[in-house]
Amino acid sequence: MDLDDFTAEEITAVLDDAAAMREVLSRDVKKVPTLRGKVVVTLFYEASTRTRISFEEAGKILSADVINMTSTASSVEKGESLLNTGLTLQAMGVDAIVVRHPHSGAPHFLARTLDRVSIINAGDGAHAHPTQGLLDLHTAREHLGDLAGRKVVIVGDVLHSRVARSAVWGFARLGANVVLCGPPTLLPDPLTPAGWGPGDNGVHNPLASVTVQPDLDAAVEGADLVMALRLQLERQKVGFFPSLREYIRRWQVNDARMARANPDALLMHPGPMNEGIEVSTALAHGERSLIEEQVTNGVAIRMALLYQLVGSGSGGD
Amino acid sequence: MDLDDFTAEEITAVLDDAAAMREVLSRDVKKVPTLRGKVVVTLFYEASTRTRISFEEAGKILSADVINMTSTASSVEKGESLLNTGLTLQAMGVDAIVVRHPHSGAPHFLARTLDRVSIINAGDGAHAHPTQGLLDLHTAREHLGDLAGRKVVIVGDVLHSRVARSAVWGFARLGANVVLCGPPTLLPDPLTPAGWGPGDNGVHNPLASVTVQPDLDAAVEGADLVMALRLQLERQKVGFFPSLREYIRRWQVNDARMARANPDALLMHPGPMNEGIEVSTALAHGERSLIEEQVTNGVAIRMALLYQLVGSGSGGD
Amino acid sequence: MDLDDFTAEEITAVLDDAAAMREVLSRDVKKVPTLRGKVVVTLFYEASTRTRISFEEAGKILSADVINMTSTASSVEKGESLLNTGLTLQAMGVDAIVVRHPHSGAPHFLARTLDRVSIINAGDGAHAHPTQGLLDLHTAREHLGDLAGRKVVIVGDVLHSRVARSAVWGFARLGANVVLCGPPTLLPDPLTPAGWGPGDNGVHNPLASVTVQPDLDAAVEGADLVMALRLQLERQKVGFFPSLREYIRRWQVNDARMARANPDALLMHPGPMNEGIEVSTALAHGERSLIEEQVTNGVAIRMALLYQLVGSGSGGD
Repeated sequence: MDLDDFTAEEITAVLDDAAAMREVLSRDVKKVPTLRGKVVVTLFYEASTRTRISFEEAGKILSADVINMTSTASSVEKGESLLNTGLTLQAMGVDAIVVRHPHSGAPHFLARTLDRVSIINAGDGAHAHPTQGLLDLHTAREHLGDLAGRKVVIVGDVLHSRVARSAVWGFARLGANVVLCGPPTLLPDPLTPAGWGPGDNGVHNPLASVTVQPDLDAAVEGADLVMALRLQLERQKVGFFPSLREYIRRWQVNDARMARANPDALLMHPGPMNEGIEVSTALAHGERSLIEEQVTNGVAIRMALLYQLVGSGSGGD
Repeated sequence: MDLDDFTAEEITAVLDDAAAMREVLSRDVKKVPTLRGKVVVTLFYEASTRTRISFEEAGKILSADVINMTSTASSVEKGESLLNTGLTLQAMGVDAIVVRHPHSGAPHFLARTLDRVSIINAGDGAHAHPTQGLLDLHTAREHLGDLAGRKVVIVGDVLHSRVARSAVWGFARLGANVVLCGPPTLLPDPLTPAGWGPGDNGVHNPLASVTVQPDLDAAVEGADLVMALRLQLERQKVGFFPSLREYIRRWQVNDARMARANPDALLMHPGPMNEGIEVSTALAHGERSLIEEQVTNGVAIRMALLYQLVGSGSGGD
Repeated sequence: MDLDDFTAEEITAVLDDAAAMREVLSRDVKKVPTLRGKVVVTLFYEASTRTRISFEEAGKILSADVINMTSTASSVEKGESLLNTGLTLQAMGVDAIVVRHPHSGAPHFLARTLDRVSIINAGDGAHAHPTQGLLDLHTAREHLGDLAGRKVVIVGDVLHSRVARSAVWGFARLGANVVLCGPPTLLPDPLTPAGWGPGDNGVHNPLASVTVQPDLDAAVEGADLVMALRLQLERQKVGFFPSLREYIRRWQVNDARMARANPDALLMHPGPMNEGIEVSTALAHGERSLIEEQVTNGVAIRMALLYQLVGSGSGGD
């Protein structure tokens, strides 16, 4: 269920379904009976409202029964282990668990252990955020068509970003040339990018086609797509970047910088945005911005994933 | 979406719809397909369980998909702005946002900025609580008929109460004679009631027909309706009223005081009640009390508003 | 609504309905229209995720509208009394309230006061947890058949456990021989079990057939069913048991101990489990364990109760 498990064909299949789901979303009556009688639990050990709401809406539009379970209101307080929580939900007849967890690999662990419930990774530690990666790919593909050979710049705190990690894997797998940009302290080592190699699934490492360029002016040269990442402002305290002013001066994506990219280059940001820091306000709300479309596609992608895992009968019974 | 934006005709239209919704509520099977395929988000930056649940139930009975988003579990923690939250929900295809916010004007701001989603004000700062005002009007009208010329006494912490503010506007607009009563420190200045004048919408100020009478015995003389407000007990510490004993002695609504009103005068309270403080227990649970009926009408009014804003196709697409 | 109010016949009726509900749960499309147009509120003054989710799922599968209300997000913060909360929910037209409360008797109090809404006790203080008791009975009966004359051992913190209390009442009423086991400091007094006698409903006390045996090896001799209770680890600090090591040595249920029971004796645990403390990991996940089945039956029992109280028209109108 991580993007690095997906082949290019599997990624394309989800994106194709997402296009159909996008059509459902645009209807006046946004409701289809696809997942009627299926139970989906969102199990969030970290607060992430927009991801949870996106999944909740996706499930409800597909007519699933959606139940929210967050760590603050949960038996996590009683020290129940992730495994026992998963076994309990499986025993309740739950069809899918959407899990967000601070520890890398937690969703993988659940998926390996539970055999009658589908697990969807909604973000685990610094490891991955595959639905965000898929919605990024979907949004890019709708505007750029085939991504092979396209130049995609990902700028910001690449090192700590599960969004970046999932996006890099997806874009690289679909043939894009990915350039990582940002303060050197926030970039993976260009030679041995720790934690960025292939996982224990042993697939081909598409990161071979990824390059690192800390200078944003150089990086955006000829780019088709620039994705700015959210800056965790508290990282400044521990010295990851010198000052906000310096960060804005060197790594903010704005109109002047976008002028160096291809004429029809586009902007993406996973949100929530620190407006005026990672991206200038004018650019964020301007014509090049795909930020709101990413949000819309997020619902469509989650509908497509729920449909593939639960609706087709492969996972829920 | 504030009551001071509504004309008397618009108010009457909502109240008429509410009567139909009240009938739905009384059915054995409380379900109509009116808002099927519509998504309603309750976005609460302040805890207010009864208002949230009233909206959630209203939406669900109309077959909408209702999603709760509270500040404690939200990306508010990540510093996301109200505007970006609104833009995100709009991009997700949400049809209506029911917003409760500590800052006056927050719902107005959202409504001005978002063009594809309906905004319903569920209380903003000390400014307004229009659905409470509407349910108060509806309850009063059902029992008193035409409100023109009726004497309505509102007693308690008028100054800080958004409930009072919305009720005053509504009752005054429908022609009632409103008398404000309570400790002078908790009443607006009778000559220049700061913050109680007409908003920037520039409509006629119905407050011209509102009078102030701190003496409750005098105020209830000949009253048709007495509305007691919730007392924020913590206001005593900062000197707004001398002591609870003194407050009860002078401003509690009880049977003795109601004897000075019209023989069939009625009692209202927006809840939650400090029983035995603002209202005597006997009166609160007695025959004159409309308190529980206000709660029932609250669901009906919220159904009517959701129907008018989302169901008629005027707001959601 | 407590198990000690139920006759053996009434208990059997719920268990029979639960068997039918279990069949619904096993369907590919888990949805029946039984409670369409009914509103169920889960009102939890204590965190208990698995119980809340079990009720929420039960209600949703029966097509009820389920609304969650927890103390942390509730007007409890405003000092609203349990009674006024109940009256408010009743006035909103809610059909059933599932209440979890730290004070013994709180659900009984609500049920006595409210006449148009059904109250379901989801656990009150150390008093009772009747739906857990019912699911335990249901699970036992499905495997052992008639419980009359069967030996049931309940081991652990019996004194503080509402699960134990409800299970004891149920098993005893259906004719089983119940043996209570655990550290003497965690057992009720064998002669005058304080708080364990008949309630004010004045029914026959089935506890006459309950015995106390602190030695687990002796207790499991010839047992048909062993139920281990959750240990509140913080009780050690106040001296209720000497050390975890000592507890495990003397009162952990494991394969060696189960060898003293009947050859086909079964294990139950209400969860959440402290694996390796109350029960050995091998036994908990082994063939004798009914733990996951208890969870599944929990949903079925809650469906059956909601159906009996709301669906049959006896409580909701």
